[in-house]
Amino acid sequence: MLSRFFSGNRAVLARMISRVENDRAVSDKVLDHIFQQVKGAYRIGITGPPGAGKSTLVDRLVSDFRKQEKTVGVIAIDPTSPFTGGALLGDRIRMASNLGDPGVFIRSMATRGSLGGLAHTTQEAADVMDAFGLDVIILETVGVGQSELDIVEAADTVIVVLVPESGDSIQAMKAGLMEIGDIFVLNKSDHENADQAYMELSSVLSLKYGHGQWNLKVIQTVAHEAKGLDELMREIRSHWEYLSGNGKLERKQRDRIRKRLKIKLERKLKSDFWTENRKDLFEIFVTRLLNKEISYAEAIKKLFEPELTDKKL
Amino acid sequence: MLSRFFSGNRAVLARMISRVENDRAVSDKVLDHIFQQVKGAYRIGITGPPGAGKSTLVDRLVSDFRKQEKTVGVIAIDPTSPFTGGALLGDRIRMASNLGDPGVFIRSMATRGSLGGLAHTTQEAADVMDAFGLDVIILETVGVGQSELDIVEAADTVIVVLVPESGDSIQAMKAGLMEIGDIFVLNKSDHENADQAYMELSSVLSLKYGHGQWNLKVIQTVAHEAKGLDELMREIRSHWEYLSGNGKLERKQRDRIRKRLKIKLERKLKSDFWTENRKDLFEIFVTRLLNKEISYAEAIKKLFEPELTDKKL
Repeated sequence: MLSRFFSGNRAVLARMISRVENDRAVSDKVLDHIFQQVKGAYRIGITGPPGAGKSTLVDRLVSDFRKQEKTVGVIAIDPTSPFTGGALLGDRIRMASNLGDPGVFIRSMATRGSLGGLAHTTQEAADVMDAFGLDVIILETVGVGQSELDIVEAADTVIVVLVPESGDSIQAMKAGLMEIGDIFVLNKSDHENADQAYMELSSVLSLKYGHGQWNLKVIQTVAHEAKGLDELMREIRSHWEYLSGNGKLERKQRDRIRKRLKIKLERKLKSDFWTENRKDLFEIFVTRLLNKEISYAEAIKKLFEPELTDKKL
Repeated sequence: MLSRFFSGNRAVLARMISRVENDRAVSDKVLDHIFQQVKGAYRIGITGPPGAGKSTLVDRLVSDFRKQEKTVGVIAIDPTSPFTGGALLGDRIRMASNLGDPGVFIRSMATRGSLGGLAHTTQEAADVMDAFGLDVIILETVGVGQSELDIVEAADTVIVVLVPESGDSIQAMKAGLMEIGDIFVLNKSDHENADQAYMELSSVLSLKYGHGQWNLKVIQTVAHEAKGLDELMREIRSHWEYLSGNGKLERKQRDRIRKRLKIKLERKLKSDFWTENRKDLFEIFVTRLLNKEISYAEAIKKLFEPELTDKKL
């Protein structure tokens, strides 16, 4: 299976990602086999409120990267999947221009069923795509929950997509989008309030967030007409050069590794700790605490006794 | 100090809460000394969007409980404290009707500085108030983040306060408030849209959330004129009777203990694990992972070697 994976078999890539998504033990094994092939594909995170036109924009970006002879992977996260399975599929199908292109691999992921671990799973799926040999990986999500923000923060370049609606930049600030964006896109900028929204957003960015070395810009686009896409591609390129030039790319990769290793360690720490014995005793101590027969300190002391890791009480 | 605490010294109560808030080690010690005196004061959580009139409502509830000869503790959480220290103080001062009453103890808590642990700290502060002998404890917070929802969920009865504004019940649904409320208050119900908002809210509740044994109701109030307060107090009493009648109160207390014991255990587990040696080695392995000299599985195996808990490498 690994040899077929490395020879570029897309069906095997799909199966590998499913395994990473569905089974933690298998996932760890898979990643251990491919880690040396994770080359550091360029990772772009795209987020923004629902209806901002992210899917269309991603579709355009994919086409533009394809023109540059880059292969592209897309991971689209749908945070409301239990109810919108159909809508999501609809979104994906709208990416018609890239359907059937062997240099493009698109994958949807549902937040349902990966409670607390979505950011982790997404990164691992990105690693699989990376090891497969894709040059650019786009992580797309609706910026609503912390988990979704974590995902895009795991990217090298984060694009925040907004639309010209009154108060939209204030909402974005509240949702924490302003802090994570490297590039801001004002999509649907053929709308009537576009100029005012552009001014508002630019001034908010320059006032509050424009003091780093990287100069935050607002790019105006009309994704469905491909307007502004050249400028956006140039800005993405600039940000990549900025990151590579001063060692920031490596620092980002280091941070990603640090976070992931920590999660893996603490997961093992917990699973080693919660033996069946200990789980049983835990419930007994909960009852004793309820009856005030024991203090928390005493309960904790007892639950840390090493013999509890044995299989018999 | 403990004897002065148990003899009802309010200054000592204040100091004990500060200790619980500021120092985890001291907090554990304090709680271990008082746990047998935690009698199970009735805990009421109050949440809702900013400007819904929660503070005024709390003030009225406190007065009403005082008329019933109950002593009352209030813990008010301000999620935006770094910027609104002044505003918060203003709110508290508006609780003028209960200032100086020795049967009322009011405490503000800032979310700042207790990252990730606010719900935990709040519950421990409530335990201190409980052990001090207060009969009713009101936990008030603005329902915005998960941490704030956790706090009110730790209460026996959760009151969600809304105001008649268009789309307010939809916002409340999005924020997860509908799921946690036992009683819904439509405050400022002298406003023009009040009747429509009442209908809307009632129908949403009966449609989506009215299928349990407890019958969710919307109480209309005008807090600053004390209108609807009698009905609200009756509803609180009914919910308490409902909880006590069928063992639900004990189940809630058991859940609280379970959550807290788990948090304390896993906190100790992590702090035992992260010795100085291990932290140093962790950084070394991050570099090796970056250079692809080692896999995650190998790094984890090495970092779990027991000798790393020693003080020397």
